[in-house]
Amino acid sequence: MYVTLVEVQVKPDRVDDFIRESALNHAGSIQEPGNLRFDILQSPDDPTRFILYEAYATEADAAAHKQTAHYARWREAVADWMAAPRRGVRWNGLYPRVGSS
Amino acid sequence: MYVTLVEVQVKPDRVDDFIRESALNHAGSIQEPGNLRFDILQSPDDPTRFILYEAYATEADAAAHKQTAHYARWREAVADWMAAPRRGVRWNGLYPRVGSS
Repeated sequence: MYVTLVEVQVKPDRVDDFIRESALNHAGSIQEPGNLRFDILQSPDDPTRFILYEAYATEADAAAHKQTAHYARWREAVADWMAAPRRGVRWNGLYPRVGSS
Repeated sequence: MYVTLVEVQVKPDRVDDFIRESALNHAGSIQEPGNLRFDILQSPDDPTRFILYEAYATEADAAAHKQTAHYARWREAVADWMAAPRRGVRWNGLYPRVGSS
């Protein structure tokens, strides 16, 4: 699995907007070929902190995500709602054994 | 979803052992009631760094994991292989909408 953890810090007055737009991105992303997870996580300690946990079978599947309309909409919608630049960290998914790692 | 990200730093000469034991823990954990993910991630930049991405429908399901034989075996097996204490960070899984958040 080709995994990316995207860490996001959202402006406090935009948390609800961010969740709404990210839910749309989630709904589109889980329909993509090769998508295995697109989980939206919120910190119980700080509700302005989120992780998007994105897992695809292959790197090519993950790259194709960036070409979708739902990703483009999300990226544009949330750009001004972030309190800091988002940070994506790559991981190799060893288990479950799906696709490349 | 009740999510825990467990960050682990393994001693370099124990990486293969850690993967083998964690694979057994994975195989047992995905059979548990309420388990949604038990993903084992390795850093492409530093192969001694791992994340266990554990998602359960409810907090009770996650607590039950700690009572299983495969968890007890894993915890004991890997204890001396860690270069630093492991760190579990809690997250509320908003999407997919499964169980409590």
